Amino acid sequence: MKALVIRPPHDLAVEEVPSDPLGPAQLRVHIRAGGICGSDLHYYQHGGFGTVRVKEPMVLGHEVSGTVVEVGGAVTGFHTGDRIAISPSRPCGQCRYCLAGMPNQCLAMRFYGSAAPTPHVNGAFRQEIVVEAWQAHKVGDRISDAEAAMAEPLSVALHAVRRAGQILGNRVLVTGSGPIGVLIVMAARRAGAAEIVATDIADEALAVAGQAGADRVINTGSDPAALAAFGADKGSFDVMFEASGSQKALAGGIDAVRPRGVIMQVGNSGAEMTLPVNVVTAKELDLRGSYRFHEEFAQALTFLNSRLIDVRPLITASYPFTEFREAFALAGDRSRAMKVQLTFS
Amino acid sequence: MKALVIRPPHDLAVEEVPSDPLGPAQLRVHIRAGGICGSDLHYYQHGGFGTVRVKEPMVLGHEVSGTVVEVGGAVTGFHTGDRIAISPSRPCGQCRYCLAGMPNQCLAMRFYGSAAPTPHVNGAFRQEIVVEAWQAHKVGDRISDAEAAMAEPLSVALHAVRRAGQILGNRVLVTGSGPIGVLIVMAARRAGAAEIVATDIADEALAVAGQAGADRVINTGSDPAALAAFGADKGSFDVMFEASGSQKALAGGIDAVRPRGVIMQVGNSGAEMTLPVNVVTAKELDLRGSYRFHEEFAQALTFLNSRLIDVRPLITASYPFTEFREAFALAGDRSRAMKVQLTFS
Amino acid sequence: MKALVIRPPHDLAVEEVPSDPLGPAQLRVHIRAGGICGSDLHYYQHGGFGTVRVKEPMVLGHEVSGTVVEVGGAVTGFHTGDRIAISPSRPCGQCRYCLAGMPNQCLAMRFYGSAAPTPHVNGAFRQEIVVEAWQAHKVGDRISDAEAAMAEPLSVALHAVRRAGQILGNRVLVTGSGPIGVLIVMAARRAGAAEIVATDIADEALAVAGQAGADRVINTGSDPAALAAFGADKGSFDVMFEASGSQKALAGGIDAVRPRGVIMQVGNSGAEMTLPVNVVTAKELDLRGSYRFHEEFAQALTFLNSRLIDVRPLITASYPFTEFREAFALAGDRSRAMKVQLTFS
Amino acid sequence: MKALVIRPPHDLAVEEVPSDPLGPAQLRVHIRAGGICGSDLHYYQHGGFGTVRVKEPMVLGHEVSGTVVEVGGAVTGFHTGDRIAISPSRPCGQCRYCLAGMPNQCLAMRFYGSAAPTPHVNGAFRQEIVVEAWQAHKVGDRISDAEAAMAEPLSVALHAVRRAGQILGNRVLVTGSGPIGVLIVMAARRAGAAEIVATDIADEALAVAGQAGADRVINTGSDPAALAAFGADKGSFDVMFEASGSQKALAGGIDAVRPRGVIMQVGNSGAEMTLPVNVVTAKELDLRGSYRFHEEFAQALTFLNSRLIDVRPLITASYPFTEFREAFALAGDRSRAMKVQLTFS
Repeated sequence: MKALVIRPPHDLAVEEVPSDPLGPAQLRVHIRAGGICGSDLHYYQHGGFGTVRVKEPMVLGHEVSGTVVEVGGAVTGFHTGDRIAISPSRPCGQCRYCLAGMPNQCLAMRFYGSAAPTPHVNGAFRQEIVVEAWQAHKVGDRISDAEAAMAEPLSVALHAVRRAGQILGNRVLVTGSGPIGVLIVMAARRAGAAEIVATDIADEALAVAGQAGADRVINTGSDPAALAAFGADKGSFDVMFEASGSQKALAGGIDAVRPRGVIMQVGNSGAEMTLPVNVVTAKELDLRGSYRFHEEFAQALTFLNSRLIDVRPLITASYPFTEFREAFALAGDRSRAMKVQLTFS
Repeated sequence: MKALVIRPPHDLAVEEVPSDPLGPAQLRVHIRAGGICGSDLHYYQHGGFGTVRVKEPMVLGHEVSGTVVEVGGAVTGFHTGDRIAISPSRPCGQCRYCLAGMPNQCLAMRFYGSAAPTPHVNGAFRQEIVVEAWQAHKVGDRISDAEAAMAEPLSVALHAVRRAGQILGNRVLVTGSGPIGVLIVMAARRAGAAEIVATDIADEALAVAGQAGADRVINTGSDPAALAAFGADKGSFDVMFEASGSQKALAGGIDAVRPRGVIMQVGNSGAEMTLPVNVVTAKELDLRGSYRFHEEFAQALTFLNSRLIDVRPLITASYPFTEFREAFALAGDRSRAMKVQLTFS
Repeated sequence: MKALVIRPPHDLAVEEVPSDPLGPAQLRVHIRAGGICGSDLHYYQHGGFGTVRVKEPMVLGHEVSGTVVEVGGAVTGFHTGDRIAISPSRPCGQCRYCLAGMPNQCLAMRFYGSAAPTPHVNGAFRQEIVVEAWQAHKVGDRISDAEAAMAEPLSVALHAVRRAGQILGNRVLVTGSGPIGVLIVMAARRAGAAEIVATDIADEALAVAGQAGADRVINTGSDPAALAAFGADKGSFDVMFEASGSQKALAGGIDAVRPRGVIMQVGNSGAEMTLPVNVVTAKELDLRGSYRFHEEFAQALTFLNSRLIDVRPLITASYPFTEFREAFALAGDRSRAMKVQLTFS
Repeated sequence: MKALVIRPPHDLAVEEVPSDPLGPAQLRVHIRAGGICGSDLHYYQHGGFGTVRVKEPMVLGHEVSGTVVEVGGAVTGFHTGDRIAISPSRPCGQCRYCLAGMPNQCLAMRFYGSAAPTPHVNGAFRQEIVVEAWQAHKVGDRISDAEAAMAEPLSVALHAVRRAGQILGNRVLVTGSGPIGVLIVMAARRAGAAEIVATDIADEALAVAGQAGADRVINTGSDPAALAAFGADKGSFDVMFEASGSQKALAGGIDAVRPRGVIMQVGNSGAEMTLPVNVVTAKELDLRGSYRFHEEFAQALTFLNSRLIDVRPLITASYPFTEFREAFALAGDRSRAMKVQLTFS
């Protein structure tokens, strides 16, 4: 079986890897589609992000869908041929955060394709994978493998929106219209936002944000004053989602959010940020982090299967995994790509 | 000018009433459409509900839309010809609840068409009315007067859903599929419910609930066992909205809601209810009242104008206000009517 | 080894029971003190409560402290001679409620001395017990065995107060001044209540509530009008704790709590209650159940050891467990007893 | 009548100012005690803080108590001779934040002794002042004027603790042990913190924090490693209060707070701060501002009058207002002073 393996410092290649044995509570799955995430790009381009470095060979990838080809003896509810999305979130279920209902904060998390722990956790950009049955979520007939592989980033967006508190009837700002930002636009619309403003510095990204449901898009590069108008009378937005990882975006939003409003920080920032903390204090803002997801993966499937959230506008292109160089190149070009996926069969 | 006036005990008639003078911060409005609410029906059929009685002549009605015909000198932002929905919620703005951000709990509320305070507060089933400019909310061009008159009951639904906490990705039960129940189905879907089950004892009402977005409808009269299945493992629903005012519905829901789930009591119950409080205790449920609305009226207009919530499936029929007997008769027949409205011009 | 065993229908006796083997993660403990709870009294007097019945022999008791006499090989942090309080809450750690951070709602809970599941779960009114090390919490030198045995009911009170939301600076009503009610007075004072009013129908209980920190006590039997005064302008109390299980107390409190106030139902009511649900709706009250505890047990020890909560005013008397008849008789007499305990060595 | 007036750039002097006429809803008060706040010190030492500058003459002072000497005709409940604490928080009661229950965010706030708006708002370091009756809160007989003048900073602490969510049973970190930090220690203890760690770089301040109830104090200057130990397993503290305005303190706390913990930013930071926002994101922390207070002033009086919070350990010294130079010099010396007050009669 073949997989996409990254080796230090950041050499990506198709390699032969062994199949895993199948346990009684497990499923063997042929991977169909796998989305390239921003972190995959960072591993490929830079060998890591922040303090995380690729230190040993690791299979990449955590946004995948597939087809069940073998079912463990103790598994109920799944059959050969079932199409599934696979949750890459594998908390231990026993640490104090797991038992406190915060599995995404697990002290022994084994998230697919992550170089944060050592030994690294292998990912799912591979032709075949063995998963726990509880990682598998069925995909509806009319939903494509590509859509199903969007379950993971959609889960990230849902987790952020669920952590933000009241959305119904409220005004929402989304800074950064990459895949996560646009999925947050969709999730916030689904959650009942009355008005959504999305920002970015790339018009192409903003166009997708508009398709995704943003009522207004602002290019903060070419029109830096437009957002400032929302800062009158201490601010307009009830909730802001920062999905760019940019200090400038976060600082700009702090002005535009009303007193006691909520700012969800979702975007990864590689380094420290300099912020007007005095404004956070005086306006009693609530700057709240959001990280990965857990129970939202099942919710994502419900929304995808019903198309209550329709992610198709985000899917730019698909390449056989052997053409990963072209795929990663496109994924890294924000003027042309939103979400690029690989196929494995 | 003519109005629909109810006199004790419960005699409704078209009567001549005087026009009010126009203050500088006010608008004079020709009423276009007015919906008949359950409380209007109770006044008409029984002269009141609970301990509230019609004790003196009162203009009925609080769900209205109209057209501006005269604008006070100090008003900005409104012009003759503007089509508006009118909020019937008029809190004092000075009592301790108003200043605590709970205007719907105002100690001196003057809600249209209410016999709860004495003297009663006149309502808006009339050809012309003078309103404060802040009561007026503009109606979009493509939205009908009839839809605009749905802003008030939609506000009730939005208030209930906003008070319920987390909806996005959650499982929701709505008991009672009258106009408020169906609007709650719509609002809960808008707020991101992953699954909505609606109940009633009338198949006609359930059909509208299905059109409104309920994933499953249950006739608890003809199929009393269906809801019980949701009670396994301490319950399935994250949130329940009780919109029937029925003790049996509330008690049934208490079994079907999961531990620490939320039960919003929205339906008016004329009398006391007998409840399994020991189950509320053991499952640590959260039984929470919801009453009227305030800031939700503006939100309702946003949703109506954008059709992010489309209330048209609820509007059964419309009658000239002089034919109020036919209108109220239809409104009182759940097998034929969801929302019946009057026209005033 | 001897234990206090209840046999159907409700025959309590000292019986010989075998010792359990010691596992590597366990402690063997000599029980020192054990408090008689209201549920123990119900088993003894009536053979159960609500739908729960004693159907087979069961060791009673769940409020206990003791001394470690043997330490399993894998245990760290405990030694022979350590004085401990023992948490009777033993959730499975694997069901969906455990993993959602709600261990007290565990689907497979094995709470000491409970006839709710069948087979029943044996309790801790016994000379010796083997416990998991995580059930054990160290008792400070200056704290008596009797105080340590109050950790369990104090945990119930802490859980209720923690679930109530904002207490600091708020006005609190506690209805029912039995052991749990009085511990709630203490916990609410500890949590920063600005004013605490406690009610009961027994002056002796109210005297203890006053000692425990209640600013005012009201005998609602002899002075039924006193509480009604708190109902002016829609109510005065921000939070109410119902600790009597009495329908009358709950209904009375519903009038005295302000709009959007919180009512915690803590007291067990054997049967259904008839309530003015229309007032819950109109005042948008929040009636919330509270059931047992989990993480609060460790917190209780912190408060007991530091005497930030001083439970000594509650401890009425102590009897050797062989004199259980006298002990249970006293425990059942509210005019003479608050908390009666047994000793086991 | 004489007052302490600051003139640009930062010249403080005793000056003659006129008395105000008494309105029917007002009280005339002889000021007894007035505490020197950090902002007063900044006006005196630097002519302002952040972007706020003294641009015109202004009476300083906002932490005051006094005695009623004349009562307006429409006032009930106050009499000549009443001793009161005076709330300096005067929101407009009409703007959107006032009506949303956030009076401390009022768009037209007239807070005593503030150069933030222009014209500046005169303060209360004066022999006599006319106040609205609703600003006045009665002081108990056994409480000194000096204690009563602590109501204002105590209100700031209470507001921060109330905004922090769950405190009961939780572990709390307070960084910065100046007057606000120490009052937060007291308020957090009152609110049921199970464990409180306070930090500072001055041993004298830490000694007062210990007297105020901190379980442990850490000099982060002389023992920089001590706090780091709390960062194991993603952090220990449930809630942190940052009361120093120091970037280093905030950044250090971010490591020591557990996932989904709350960090209240209370201390004023004159400039921007550089923060590890990636940690806020990954640990899903909640960084929340707290600014001034409103309803907490009445609560502060309840706690002061009952001595449920005893502020006497904070009061360092008192000077006649004519000796303001000595008073401000002492107030500015953290090695000798916690709270320095002025007297006005």
